[in-house]
Amino acid sequence: MVSIDLKIQRERAQRLRQLHHDPQLLVLPNVWDAASARIVEQAGFPAIATASTGIAAALGYGDGQQISREMMIAAIARITRVVDLPVTADIEAGYGDTPEEILHTVQQVIEAGAVGINIEDSLPHAPGQLVDMAAQVELIQALRHLDIPLVINARTDVFLLGIGEPGDRLQHAVRRANAYLQAGADCVYPIGRLDRSVTAELVKAINGPINILAGPPAPTLPELEQLGVARVSLAGDIMRAVLGHLRTIASELHQHGTYTSMQQDSLSGAEFSSLFDKE
Amino acid sequence: MVSIDLKIQRERAQRLRQLHHDPQLLVLPNVWDAASARIVEQAGFPAIATASTGIAAALGYGDGQQISREMMIAAIARITRVVDLPVTADIEAGYGDTPEEILHTVQQVIEAGAVGINIEDSLPHAPGQLVDMAAQVELIQALRHLDIPLVINARTDVFLLGIGEPGDRLQHAVRRANAYLQAGADCVYPIGRLDRSVTAELVKAINGPINILAGPPAPTLPELEQLGVARVSLAGDIMRAVLGHLRTIASELHQHGTYTSMQQDSLSGAEFSSLFDKE
Repeated sequence: MVSIDLKIQRERAQRLRQLHHDPQLLVLPNVWDAASARIVEQAGFPAIATASTGIAAALGYGDGQQISREMMIAAIARITRVVDLPVTADIEAGYGDTPEEILHTVQQVIEAGAVGINIEDSLPHAPGQLVDMAAQVELIQALRHLDIPLVINARTDVFLLGIGEPGDRLQHAVRRANAYLQAGADCVYPIGRLDRSVTAELVKAINGPINILAGPPAPTLPELEQLGVARVSLAGDIMRAVLGHLRTIASELHQHGTYTSMQQDSLSGAEFSSLFDKE
Repeated sequence: MVSIDLKIQRERAQRLRQLHHDPQLLVLPNVWDAASARIVEQAGFPAIATASTGIAAALGYGDGQQISREMMIAAIARITRVVDLPVTADIEAGYGDTPEEILHTVQQVIEAGAVGINIEDSLPHAPGQLVDMAAQVELIQALRHLDIPLVINARTDVFLLGIGEPGDRLQHAVRRANAYLQAGADCVYPIGRLDRSVTAELVKAINGPINILAGPPAPTLPELEQLGVARVSLAGDIMRAVLGHLRTIASELHQHGTYTSMQQDSLSGAEFSSLFDKE
């Protein structure tokens, strides 16, 4: 476990929270291990977000709390150990069957060096169903009252799970988002493959910072910024892209025995070996 | 820890050993985590090799036994858990200060589900120096006499470390390689960025299967096969290539806010989420 410095973490949490209120869009290309975190840090982003699906895949598991709380926290600690930026951790539904267990998870995530979380309202062990809104509001209130530096990104899965009639989802997502903000969330995340007009309506109707899932077919980042989105993340899309490139490299080696795609945009040996030499 | 089935492991070790004697070149694009192992398995390769440098980087450390034996073995176990192919593990110099400790490491690596190892003759804690040849021969003899299914790839670091005068290295590497084969190694690996003529001389002078480091500036795989090379690996080059692609994706997002490189050769969502559904 990382031994944390509370003063540094308070400063990092404050910095992460402020990034939701800057005119500039907060962009979070989600990482899955220490090496991917360092590459994103070096590329100039102001914070690091994990993708639970990426962390699970790197460890050999599917998404959806198939890995244990301990495995997830250890993976988060390996990432916070190597970056100086604020780290926000995707902790799915909180790895617990009761609010007390979820609060315990979050305490441990902060002890592992993170300063923010994504917490979703999908019901664990019941695919396709949402947690009761009042219960999720109580959970967010309890998280807000923890005496730890914590930026809460409250995800609602209304669109992702396709809850109710299509025509009702926007209002449902807005209702949950505003309730979660009211309960103390710093940002809300109506995750889904949303088009420009739905995104614009969400920005208009939600009373606080909004996280949107970027990546095709979403509009480009400058367009999302212009719509008033506060924060974007890429979920598992970055790891999918990178694994796809590995597939291309492996197929070329297997079929032709040549190195073209391997050489395409590789790190040099020196760049690779200096990844963990802190500047 | 993976609970191993000795019958399966004997069969896999036998299969891996045989691959060194087939007319077809054994190609090992080294992996660093469970997801990369599954992609390489799906691409049609007959065995999986780990790269110690890649495993260390994924965990946030530099190469050279900076991670503990326990961390390395846990990483190997995560890989063997998700693939059906024989797995050979790069265990650097064996994570031990005495032959007994190194034998203990190898026992644990096999218990973690691997059936082969790379063991190198770089002296740990003494950068740039080789283990005494007689001591390495004794170690390989002891490994050979362990009652476990084990394919030994004995690496000599004469070229990698630039030992002695350049004109003497080929003979030195050959001397060590033949001694390691005589001691019971299944294959020898004179690692280095070697040109075609040195590779051809090594094949001629070494009395058994040879592993060559492929990737630029080495000849293509069909050329290496034609030279008589038995096995090639890619060391950290595959992970370097993949992290370089991540850098390209992150830079495009940061500078332009667009998704072109992300989309280039990405896995689909369905391909990604089925990585750990066994067919």
